Amino acid sequence: MMNKLDKLNNFEFDVQKIKHMVDQLGSFGGCLQTGVSRTAYSSEWVLAQECIAKWSRDAGLNVRFDTVGNLWARIDGTERGKAIVSGSHIDSQCPGGRFDGALGVLSALIAISVLKEAYGSPRKPVELVSFCEEEGSRFPNAGFWGSRAIVGKIDPNDCDTVIDSSGESIGNAMKSVGFDPIRIAEAKRSDIAAFIELHIEQGPILEDANLPIAIVSGITHIRQTKVTLTGDSNHAGAFPMDIRLDPMAGFAEVVTRVIDHAQKLGRPAVTTIGKCVLDPNGAAIIPRSVTFTIDARHPDPTCAANLFETHKKILEEIAARRNLSLETMVQIDLPACLSDHNLMQSIELSAREAGIKTMHMASGAGHDAQQMSEICPIAMIFVRSEGGRSHTPEEFSTIDDIMAGIKVLAGSLYDLAYKM
Amino acid sequence: MMNKLDKLNNFEFDVQKIKHMVDQLGSFGGCLQTGVSRTAYSSEWVLAQECIAKWSRDAGLNVRFDTVGNLWARIDGTERGKAIVSGSHIDSQCPGGRFDGALGVLSALIAISVLKEAYGSPRKPVELVSFCEEEGSRFPNAGFWGSRAIVGKIDPNDCDTVIDSSGESIGNAMKSVGFDPIRIAEAKRSDIAAFIELHIEQGPILEDANLPIAIVSGITHIRQTKVTLTGDSNHAGAFPMDIRLDPMAGFAEVVTRVIDHAQKLGRPAVTTIGKCVLDPNGAAIIPRSVTFTIDARHPDPTCAANLFETHKKILEEIAARRNLSLETMVQIDLPACLSDHNLMQSIELSAREAGIKTMHMASGAGHDAQQMSEICPIAMIFVRSEGGRSHTPEEFSTIDDIMAGIKVLAGSLYDLAYKM
Repeated sequence: MMNKLDKLNNFEFDVQKIKHMVDQLGSFGGCLQTGVSRTAYSSEWVLAQECIAKWSRDAGLNVRFDTVGNLWARIDGTERGKAIVSGSHIDSQCPGGRFDGALGVLSALIAISVLKEAYGSPRKPVELVSFCEEEGSRFPNAGFWGSRAIVGKIDPNDCDTVIDSSGESIGNAMKSVGFDPIRIAEAKRSDIAAFIELHIEQGPILEDANLPIAIVSGITHIRQTKVTLTGDSNHAGAFPMDIRLDPMAGFAEVVTRVIDHAQKLGRPAVTTIGKCVLDPNGAAIIPRSVTFTIDARHPDPTCAANLFETHKKILEEIAARRNLSLETMVQIDLPACLSDHNLMQSIELSAREAGIKTMHMASGAGHDAQQMSEICPIAMIFVRSEGGRSHTPEEFSTIDDIMAGIKVLAGSLYDLAYKM
Repeated sequence: MMNKLDKLNNFEFDVQKIKHMVDQLGSFGGCLQTGVSRTAYSSEWVLAQECIAKWSRDAGLNVRFDTVGNLWARIDGTERGKAIVSGSHIDSQCPGGRFDGALGVLSALIAISVLKEAYGSPRKPVELVSFCEEEGSRFPNAGFWGSRAIVGKIDPNDCDTVIDSSGESIGNAMKSVGFDPIRIAEAKRSDIAAFIELHIEQGPILEDANLPIAIVSGITHIRQTKVTLTGDSNHAGAFPMDIRLDPMAGFAEVVTRVIDHAQKLGRPAVTTIGKCVLDPNGAAIIPRSVTFTIDARHPDPTCAANLFETHKKILEEIAARRNLSLETMVQIDLPACLSDHNLMQSIELSAREAGIKTMHMASGAGHDAQQMSEICPIAMIFVRSEGGRSHTPEEFSTIDDIMAGIKVLAGSLYDLAYKM
């Protein structure tokens, strides 16, 4: 008797159709040839969600939008019980590419459709989800907005206070495309048995390892701290070096020390200073203050705690020695989230049966799965991304790698939802 | 027989009136209680120039505006010949204070008025000048606009190409207040025998030395270089430290090395990184590029050359080692300008006769005098500035220090224009 994946391998996947779907989804908000600018609740985003909805209906799934704007497409199970869910998001950076998020939604749709076609109704309910506003690219304070609504982590006031760069509140943006912010709490779910998210890697580790996909062992602890070092602004020419209180000198020392420290720790520790604003910002003026972010990540809880503690010591030591005033504010703090052992085993087995070599890796990026872990076991599949690029129109994954990801996802969903 | 300064000391200076003039001039564009925002060719600037013109006429001087907008107020000499000139500028930073520039114009006006009242017509012509747009605070590429016109260093095309932040050309701004940009070349002078500029120090050296005024030995070489370090932008979480090309890491190393170098050289070397822009500027993204300015200054030509060469080596070494691409562009390059020995001696003698202790120092800031040195010998008098502050509403000089500066300026102008 053929195992399930022999059957799937033999007749279910239409590769040309899948390539076409990637292109078609990428056309909503398409820009810069291969780029996508598709922010939450924009008309491009509505069109993309409706496209997914149509494809899902065509495949015989029951489609609905929840009250926050997440799209769900479901096959009921022959048994009652909690659902096996897969999906990701279709909002993008501005500009982003065609794969970040979108590939996870498409892969779940294709995997579920193929399983339904091949095996009919599952034992357990199976659902596709297309989350809204994962990136926070329109509403900077609304990252993971859709998945946070599902796990019940949105404060109703956020609908009024979270605004985009034009000053529009996220509540008004929701209303303008038909979602009622007052009903946002109704998006909460407590009937999910497992969540598997397929996503592009966003780093070069799979490319270096020459492997198509990875099984994600966990999502890193992410802490973003906003730091302001303040000294004295003075004339760049008339004020001698020996009596300056120059926050730029302190900032440079902080940057060097925290980056060197992460380099010494080695993978998977990372530390990034990606944002920096001087006040004032004039060539002939010693700045009064430098405000910057330290983005520090580690998937191991103890290592993460040590990393953050080291940063605190570096900041305090440099500020004290240079007589600069120091303010810090943690802006984002997402504790590490481990993948579920059983789900990882299911993915591993599915890959082995499909003859696809994999590796384990931690995700250095945050994902909706991290939110979903509050209500169910989660796991993730990473697909190799050319040059490790993401958040750029240059994002690219080959169709072979995409097919490897979809097959392994389908096998695992079969394992979880169909197998007796 | 009394010497000239005994006479001046005894009856000429009306201290209350001078305090009142500082306040009154500061009211044009006055802001933030003690601040001034008065940009070139604005209505506040026109009112301030007209106020100086009125005071000059009241003192019996012949007043005219040249074609660029500099205000001149003259007493003819009993002999023909080149003029002895003193003055500064009345445009300010936004916001600046009441003293930077304005004090040099007022001091020249008062010194010349008092000399005229006390001694009548000079032997040589004496002139007050109030330069326009020294700061470049409205037109960033038009620093020293008025004095550059006097020395014939304005390209007529600049009137169209130099624009303010609203996009208005400096030529149109000139026209709007009655100056014809086509006639700008007529502002050139070749009949100036000497130029003495009084200015606040803009640094804390006089305060540290507990002295009211200084004689400026020269103006520092100022070089502003715009630098861009470019690497690869990638995801802050998913891209391992060991394979990043992070321009922020290179930037921080450059900042530390050039600042440390200036500190080791000691006074009067200075190096400032006052401006820095990241692309992109996002907390979770390794920047693609960091663009920043290095403002480096030294009054000694050999030391300045060594300083700039060291910066070049540091940039090239760091960029090469970190595999970052490096672009540099010198934006400002004002070679050092030495004060004239005879003018310095005249100021020195004048101070000694007035019983005022002084010191010599180099100016770390650029001044109109630097431009004027292209057509005549120059010297400068610095007046102590509280806390070394400038380019801020907090600028402050005491009336005693101001009076010391005016007396010494008057004595020196007497020496140059009146003495047989």
